[in-house]
Amino acid sequence: MIKRLSAEFIGTFWLVLGGCGSAVLAAHFGGDGNPLGIGLLGVSLAFGLTVLTGAYALGHISGGHFNPAVSVGLFAAGRFPARDVLPYAVVQVLGAIAAAWVIQRIATGSAQVVIDLNAPGAFASNGYGALSPGGFDMASAMLCEVVLTAMFLIVILGATDGRAPAGFAPIAIGLALTLIHLISIPVTNTSVNPARSTGMALFAGSGAMSQLWLFWLAPIAGGVLGGLVHRGIKS
Amino acid sequence: MIKRLSAEFIGTFWLVLGGCGSAVLAAHFGGDGNPLGIGLLGVSLAFGLTVLTGAYALGHISGGHFNPAVSVGLFAAGRFPARDVLPYAVVQVLGAIAAAWVIQRIATGSAQVVIDLNAPGAFASNGYGALSPGGFDMASAMLCEVVLTAMFLIVILGATDGRAPAGFAPIAIGLALTLIHLISIPVTNTSVNPARSTGMALFAGSGAMSQLWLFWLAPIAGGVLGGLVHRGIKS
Amino acid sequence: MIKRLSAEFIGTFWLVLGGCGSAVLAAHFGGDGNPLGIGLLGVSLAFGLTVLTGAYALGHISGGHFNPAVSVGLFAAGRFPARDVLPYAVVQVLGAIAAAWVIQRIATGSAQVVIDLNAPGAFASNGYGALSPGGFDMASAMLCEVVLTAMFLIVILGATDGRAPAGFAPIAIGLALTLIHLISIPVTNTSVNPARSTGMALFAGSGAMSQLWLFWLAPIAGGVLGGLVHRGIKS
Amino acid sequence: MIKRLSAEFIGTFWLVLGGCGSAVLAAHFGGDGNPLGIGLLGVSLAFGLTVLTGAYALGHISGGHFNPAVSVGLFAAGRFPARDVLPYAVVQVLGAIAAAWVIQRIATGSAQVVIDLNAPGAFASNGYGALSPGGFDMASAMLCEVVLTAMFLIVILGATDGRAPAGFAPIAIGLALTLIHLISIPVTNTSVNPARSTGMALFAGSGAMSQLWLFWLAPIAGGVLGGLVHRGIKS
Repeated sequence: MIKRLSAEFIGTFWLVLGGCGSAVLAAHFGGDGNPLGIGLLGVSLAFGLTVLTGAYALGHISGGHFNPAVSVGLFAAGRFPARDVLPYAVVQVLGAIAAAWVIQRIATGSAQVVIDLNAPGAFASNGYGALSPGGFDMASAMLCEVVLTAMFLIVILGATDGRAPAGFAPIAIGLALTLIHLISIPVTNTSVNPARSTGMALFAGSGAMSQLWLFWLAPIAGGVLGGLVHRGIKS
Repeated sequence: MIKRLSAEFIGTFWLVLGGCGSAVLAAHFGGDGNPLGIGLLGVSLAFGLTVLTGAYALGHISGGHFNPAVSVGLFAAGRFPARDVLPYAVVQVLGAIAAAWVIQRIATGSAQVVIDLNAPGAFASNGYGALSPGGFDMASAMLCEVVLTAMFLIVILGATDGRAPAGFAPIAIGLALTLIHLISIPVTNTSVNPARSTGMALFAGSGAMSQLWLFWLAPIAGGVLGGLVHRGIKS
Repeated sequence: MIKRLSAEFIGTFWLVLGGCGSAVLAAHFGGDGNPLGIGLLGVSLAFGLTVLTGAYALGHISGGHFNPAVSVGLFAAGRFPARDVLPYAVVQVLGAIAAAWVIQRIATGSAQVVIDLNAPGAFASNGYGALSPGGFDMASAMLCEVVLTAMFLIVILGATDGRAPAGFAPIAIGLALTLIHLISIPVTNTSVNPARSTGMALFAGSGAMSQLWLFWLAPIAGGVLGGLVHRGIKS
Repeated sequence: MIKRLSAEFIGTFWLVLGGCGSAVLAAHFGGDGNPLGIGLLGVSLAFGLTVLTGAYALGHISGGHFNPAVSVGLFAAGRFPARDVLPYAVVQVLGAIAAAWVIQRIATGSAQVVIDLNAPGAFASNGYGALSPGGFDMASAMLCEVVLTAMFLIVILGATDGRAPAGFAPIAIGLALTLIHLISIPVTNTSVNPARSTGMALFAGSGAMSQLWLFWLAPIAGGVLGGLVHRGIKS
C-alpha cells in the first residue's frame, strides 16, 4: 500500500506541476498578446500529457488515478474498494500541495512572473463568477464541471474495460483531459480534480479558498454520475 | 441494441460538446487577436480527441460511429447492416442536440461570450457563401465536404481492416478528424457529420437551418463514395 | 499491383490535400497576424497526420510510401524492389497533382484567399533564395532537405524494423514528418517529397517550376543517404 | 558496441537538430509577435517528437537514451552498466555538436535569422539569471532542472518497466519531454540534457559556456534522484 500511495503522490505532483506549472510559467510568456506563450492550447496539452505519461509510468503500481474524483468514480462503478478512497485522496491532495509549492518557489525567482492574486485564475486557481477566467457564473461552472467529470470517468472506465484494446488507455485518458481543458479553461480554469484545485488554492489566496467547495462537490458528483452511466451501458 | 444506441448517443454528445464547445467557449478567449485563445488549431485538436477518446471508451459497445455519414459509409462498404442505419442516425442527432443545449446553457452564463447569430459560423454552425467563415461559395463547400468525408471513410475502413495493426484505429480515425478540421474550418466550419451540423444549427438560427441540407447531402455522398473506393482497393 | 498503385495514389493525394491544403486555406485564416489561423505549427501537424492516418489506412496494401524519396530510400536499404520504384513514383506524382487541383478549385471559391504567385511559398510551393519563406539561400536549402530526408528514412526504416515494437511505425513516421516541418518550413517550405513539390509547383507558376529540380535532387539524395546509414547501423 | 554508439550519436543529433533547430529557425518566424511562428508550444512538441521518433527508430539498437542524464539515471536505477556510461555520454555530446553545426550552417543562409549572442536563450542555449529567457535566478533554474529531470527518469523507468504496456514507452517518454519543455522553456530554455546544452553552448558564445556547469550538474543530479525514487516505489 505504501508503494501505491507513493505512486499516487508522485503522479498527482506531476499532474499539478505540469498542468498548473505550465499555466503559471509559460502560458503568458513574453507578455499578454505575445504568441510565443503557449496559451490555453499549450496548457491543455500539458495537463493531458501529465496523465498520459504518469499513467504509463505509474499506472501499473497504483492504477494511476491522480484525482479524488477519479477514485470516487471508480468506486461508484464498482471498480475500486471503498476503504482505499480516503487514503488515495489524502496523498493526492498532498502531492498537489507539494507541486504548488515547487511552482511558487520557481515563480518567485523571476520578476517577470507577476501573479495578481485578485485576478481570475490567479496562480492557476479554479473559480466561478468574479474568479472565472471568462466571467462564467456559478450555475455554468457547476454544469460544466459535473458534465466534464462525468465524461472523463466514462472515458476512463470504457478505455480500461476488458473489451477495449489493451495498453491504449493512458493515451485515451490523458488526451481526454487535454480535451476537457480545451473546452473549459475559460469557464472555471478547469478543475475536474479536487486535489489540483486544493493545492493551487492554498497558494492563490482567500478568493480561491472561498470557492473551493464547488471544485470538490461538482467533480465528485460528476465522477459518481460517470461511474453510474458506465454501469448502465456496459453489458 | 439499447446499449449500442446509448453509446452512440453519448459518443455524439461528446463529439459535439468537445468540438463545438471548444469553438464557442475557448477559440476566441481573450478577444479577437488574442493568442491565448485556442484558435482553429485547438478546435481541430478538440474534434479529433472527442473521437479518439470516444472510440476507445465506447467503440467496443457500438462501433463508435458518432456520425450518420460514417454509419452510411460503413453500410456502403458492406460493413454495417441497413436496418441499423436509421436508429443510429436518430440517436446521433439526439446526442448532438443534447450537447448543443449544454453548450448554450454554459455560454449564457457569461457576458463575455457574445454570439452573433448572423455571423458566419455562428454558434459553431456550418455554412457556405455568406455563412462560410472564409467566404467560400457553395461549390467549394460541396467539393470540400464530399472529398473530406470520402477520405474520412477511407481512413476509417482501412484502419479497422483486419490487416491493419489492431488497436490503433481510434488514433488514426480521431486524428483524421483533426486533420480534416485543419484543412476546412475556413471553408464550411467543417461538418463531415450531419448530426453535428443539425444539433448546432437548431440553436444557431434560421441562417444555419436554411443551409443544413448541404451538410446532410455532401457528407453522406462522401461517405458512400469513400465506402465504394475502399471496396475497390482492398483485395 | 493496381491496388497497390491505387493506394499510393490515394495516400499521396491525402498527403498533399491535407498538408498543402491546410497551408493554403487555413494557415493565414483571418489575415496576417491573426492567431486564429493554424500557422506553421498547424501545417506541420497536418502534414504528419496525413501520413499517420494514411499509413494505418493504406499501409497494409502498398507499404504507405506516398513519396518518391521514400520509395528510393527503401530501395537503397534493400527493402523495395527496383522495378517498383518508377511505377510508385508516377502514381505518387499523379496523386499530388490531383490534390493540388482540388485545393485550387476550393481556393478559387473565396475572394478572401489571395494567392500571390510571385511570393515565397506561393500556393504552398517549395523554394530557395528569393522563393524561400525565410530567405534562405540554395546551399542552406540543399543541406536542409538532404539531412532531413535522410533522417526521415532512418526513422522509417528503424521503426518498421522487425525488432521495433509492431504497429507503432505509422505514429513514428507521421510525427517525424510533423517534426521535419516544424524545423524547415521557413527554409524551403519543406519538401522532403518530390511528388508534393511537383504537384503544387504545377499550379504555383514559373518560379516554383524553375526551382523544382532541387526538390527532386535533394530529397532523393537524402533518401539514399538515409537508406545507406540504416544498413550501416543495423546488425 | 560501435552500432550502439552510432545509434546514440544519430539519436542525439536528431534531438538537437529537431528541438534546437525548430527553436532557432521557426519559433519566431515572421518576426516577434507574428503568430505564424511555432512559438514555445511548437518547440516543445519538436523536442518530444525527436525522442518519440528516435526511440522507435533506434531504441532497439542502443536503448535510445540520447542524453547523458538518462544514461546516468538508468545506471542509478541499476538498469545500465557503469562501464557504458562514459562512451554513451561522449557520443551523445558529439552528436549534439554535429547538430549544432548543421543548424548554424543553415541559419547563416538567411539574413532574416538574426541571432544576438548576448540575448537570453541565444542560439537555443540554456541559461539562468541574465541568460534565462524569463529572467529566472540560479536557484529557480537549479530547482527546475533537478525536479524535471528526476520526473523524466521516473517516466522513462516506469514506462519501460516489464509491467507497463509493451511498445508504448517511446510515446510516454517523448511526450514527457514535450511536457517538460511546456513548463520550463521560460526558466532555463529547458535542458534536462547536458549534451544538448553543450552542443548549442559551443556555438552560442562565452555567456552560455560560463553557465554550462549548471546544465551538467542539475540534470545529472536529477537523473540520479529519479533513478533512486524509481527503485523505491517499484515492488
